Amino acid sequence: MSRLLDSPTGAARVEPAVDLAGGPVGSLEDRITALFSTASGMLDAEQQADRRVTELIEEFLGRINTTTPVELSSLVEGFRSTLIPAEPTPVDSYVDFLTGQVVPHAVNKSTPLCMGQMTSALPYFVRPLTRLVTALNQNMVQVETAKALVPLERQALAMIHRLVYRRDEAFYQSFAQDKESTLGILTLGGTLANLIGLWCARNHALGPDGRFGGAEAEGLVAALRHYGHEGAAVICSEAAHYSFDKAAEMLGLGARNLIKVPTDGRQRIDLVQLKEAIRSCRARRQVILAVVGIAGTTDGGSIDDLTSLAAICRHEGIHLHVDAAWGGPVLFSNRHRHRLDGIEVADSVTIDGHKQLYLPIGTGVVCFRDPRYARVIERNAYYIIRPGSNDLGRRALEGSRPSSALYLHAALSIIGRSGYGRIIDENLRLAGVMASSIKARPELELLSEPELNIVLFRYIPRHLRARLEADQLEAADHDELNQLNSELQEAQWRAGRCFVARTELRHTRYGRSQTVVALRAVLANPATRDEHLKIVLDDILRVASELESRQARSGLAAASPTAARER
Amino acid sequence: MSRLLDSPTGAARVEPAVDLAGGPVGSLEDRITALFSTASGMLDAEQQADRRVTELIEEFLGRINTTTPVELSSLVEGFRSTLIPAEPTPVDSYVDFLTGQVVPHAVNKSTPLCMGQMTSALPYFVRPLTRLVTALNQNMVQVETAKALVPLERQALAMIHRLVYRRDEAFYQSFAQDKESTLGILTLGGTLANLIGLWCARNHALGPDGRFGGAEAEGLVAALRHYGHEGAAVICSEAAHYSFDKAAEMLGLGARNLIKVPTDGRQRIDLVQLKEAIRSCRARRQVILAVVGIAGTTDGGSIDDLTSLAAICRHEGIHLHVDAAWGGPVLFSNRHRHRLDGIEVADSVTIDGHKQLYLPIGTGVVCFRDPRYARVIERNAYYIIRPGSNDLGRRALEGSRPSSALYLHAALSIIGRSGYGRIIDENLRLAGVMASSIKARPELELLSEPELNIVLFRYIPRHLRARLEADQLEAADHDELNQLNSELQEAQWRAGRCFVARTELRHTRYGRSQTVVALRAVLANPATRDEHLKIVLDDILRVASELESRQARSGLAAASPTAARER
Repeated sequence: MSRLLDSPTGAARVEPAVDLAGGPVGSLEDRITALFSTASGMLDAEQQADRRVTELIEEFLGRINTTTPVELSSLVEGFRSTLIPAEPTPVDSYVDFLTGQVVPHAVNKSTPLCMGQMTSALPYFVRPLTRLVTALNQNMVQVETAKALVPLERQALAMIHRLVYRRDEAFYQSFAQDKESTLGILTLGGTLANLIGLWCARNHALGPDGRFGGAEAEGLVAALRHYGHEGAAVICSEAAHYSFDKAAEMLGLGARNLIKVPTDGRQRIDLVQLKEAIRSCRARRQVILAVVGIAGTTDGGSIDDLTSLAAICRHEGIHLHVDAAWGGPVLFSNRHRHRLDGIEVADSVTIDGHKQLYLPIGTGVVCFRDPRYARVIERNAYYIIRPGSNDLGRRALEGSRPSSALYLHAALSIIGRSGYGRIIDENLRLAGVMASSIKARPELELLSEPELNIVLFRYIPRHLRARLEADQLEAADHDELNQLNSELQEAQWRAGRCFVARTELRHTRYGRSQTVVALRAVLANPATRDEHLKIVLDDILRVASELESRQARSGLAAASPTAARER
Repeated sequence: MSRLLDSPTGAARVEPAVDLAGGPVGSLEDRITALFSTASGMLDAEQQADRRVTELIEEFLGRINTTTPVELSSLVEGFRSTLIPAEPTPVDSYVDFLTGQVVPHAVNKSTPLCMGQMTSALPYFVRPLTRLVTALNQNMVQVETAKALVPLERQALAMIHRLVYRRDEAFYQSFAQDKESTLGILTLGGTLANLIGLWCARNHALGPDGRFGGAEAEGLVAALRHYGHEGAAVICSEAAHYSFDKAAEMLGLGARNLIKVPTDGRQRIDLVQLKEAIRSCRARRQVILAVVGIAGTTDGGSIDDLTSLAAICRHEGIHLHVDAAWGGPVLFSNRHRHRLDGIEVADSVTIDGHKQLYLPIGTGVVCFRDPRYARVIERNAYYIIRPGSNDLGRRALEGSRPSSALYLHAALSIIGRSGYGRIIDENLRLAGVMASSIKARPELELLSEPELNIVLFRYIPRHLRARLEADQLEAADHDELNQLNSELQEAQWRAGRCFVARTELRHTRYGRSQTVVALRAVLANPATRDEHLKIVLDDILRVASELESRQARSGLAAASPTAARER
């Protein structure tokens, strides 16, 4: 027996009794055994399923269109049954179902004609790697179930920390692999990364004090009372991501105590009004847990003046959290990196892997300048996370967590600094080309010069072009444009050829009182070429023209045909 | 152009200029293009990487041992560099690195000799599917970037809801696909599922009231004041998972206001003391946001008396959250389902997909009895999640989120109710066999009859066996046993042949004052056969004997050689 155990290959594994993919044959026991067997190498059944999935993937990724024109409301009919099947379904039949009812009607975000989201095409190597990550099924909560993946995750997070904070080699030699240090926390995405950043900031501002256990032990009410505060607040700009509302809500501050400072015409936080907000909070005896700076607003990619924010926060003794979920990778660009100057003194920084690092959805990072900062959220449990251990679950929001660090680690290595720099530069170039191309078309209005690689614009119907030209658009005109552009964006999505997103801008050259619905093209696909910009803009005009003729036919007075339609 | 767009295959995609896997050739631009090309089907480079990853997976899953005996402290040396490489690394070189430094030193949780964790072997079909999930890269936050995956996720969640709540067909026809309803929320794992459950409970208990905006808008302090409460609490048993401490902390209650009621000798909440805790909270004018019931404690798999809990909560008007992260799938077993009676009246229920549903790590579910319950956490954002839309991000903790619903949907279909029932029954049978086998060995002590499929036991060295037999173990003996069993468990893990976990029990037949360190075998691998139980128990005796002779050699007075070692 001892020989058997010492040899990694000589032991008895359960052999499959039957090939499940072949259909409903064999006893229930045999069929379950076959599903879980890993006997000697990959099973025939797994290979067969893999071949079919490969075909599905090739077909999906080879598609130039974004999706089918099939309406969601009709698709839903295929998903009505809610009883879990009594008997096992053959894998092959399940793949048939995916082939017919699911994959064609997914949204292809890898086509260069999909400019509608901040998650885009993926490099090919993540597809083989994802099978490895799933096969390994490591659980990062505890070193006992992750082993080599623990130093790998720490290394990847240190790389991101170094990109942001640029500390020296000695710093990283001391802290990167030190189990009492946390240079960063890997989490599912930017929303949770921002939440973790503010959670740490709250616990720092209202921490233990002598015999008082701090907010973490005694709660927010007791902590505010102990420290003599009337309330607690976080300050950000009105362009901040909605995850901050969620975080303020969850952490017990209340969404109303997320103080939203107005932005300038370029969506950057107004520093004068920020200082005023700080003064007001203090006058109300509200403790300010953090100020949030944004490096790449969701709407338009704007970057706050981080250097000034850092100076204000340092002067006032306030935690600075920078949400660089979108803009962080601009640090790879020699040409544009300077726009993020000041980020290196932030106390915590969010970067999303699945945005401009081109990783699969599910990889957010929050980094901390101080390697011991995250200790305020430390938690142990005798059955899993042990004090003093290298268990990454000690300082985390999640419990069980997959080894998605492998994607981050692989992409940083395989794409490298110059590769990412090149992608960033090219995306920004394309945004400039698209902006010029929009300015050259009378049917379209560029709403602002792109800050990074997001282009905000709208369609102008013929009868309003002269008024736009003369700068005489009135409120009623904007309302009409808002309605039309909303319908246009929805109609284009439904047609399934191209996709741009839409948003509502609160501060444009039309002033702060006029909300403007904008089409929003995100240039973040390394496969995009100049020709694709033209295709997408042409398609917008085509959809607009179809929409206008449909509206003309149905009479202008009739209610909008699309507004009420099921999405 | 219109023809080009209407045809899904006729359009111009970027062709790869160079095969990156071949090594560092071509310009930077060419190499980036090659990484992102999806030209006509799978690239040669992707196929090549995929073949190598397949070999790695076959080697890993074919292994019977849990991991290599290489010490983590020596592995760490391979992960010291923290500069992101300046130039791209060929994919092939990266796979070399994984082959040499990562995969062999991961922990094989699919081998039947790994009984150390609640995440176990996976059915083979998730490996092909994971590549599909990554290739699709759908973002569930918004219907525009998920389309068909939205009704699919809703269907899978409705299936889980129906498993738990068993409402009639008409109920599911009304609510499963209704965009204003939320039968369940898919999240990364049980920790977040529990957090979401309590978050909803908090917002319900302290919701808007006339002109008052509720805790979500105005914060915890204002809400408690508005409703005239002195504080807020959640009540659970002392056996509750540590995620509840985390949730109470995050939500602003403070970990101390998670009231932990003692358990009986079988780790189930003491109902008399629960009622007393409710009275005490009320006497202190603390509002009770929720009572937590447990269906499968992490330590030992115990199940609270849910029927009584439900009656108490209904009588007192308190939200009942049931943490069935571990035990939920027992509902599939005709033989054992009755143990969870009462769960169908819980207000919210957590079930983990990556535990006894055998999905990849990253799939937690929280279900709600009332389809409108989760509206208290609803949040919209004008640039992404629109009021009235079918965007799943409207009621969620996360923002961007992958379509891991596909795993859940696939496994429920492919394994089916009878398949899961069979797995549960077999796991419980194996636990019984293991318990008998432990009782038959004088070197081992069974610490309690297994509640479900977790077996708690410990090693007893020769000189204490007579005292155990005579039931005369004293506190000093327990201390010695605790130390020895901790070292034994660590040594077995490091040897890398077999793996059982360990925990500390606070209430055994030795009373509440004596903490007992237990070895903890989780029987949750459908590939486990009776013979594997013997191998694992034999290995424990072998490790114990090695440990004892090492200790004898180094002298009993010397400090423990393993306790201080780096994990």
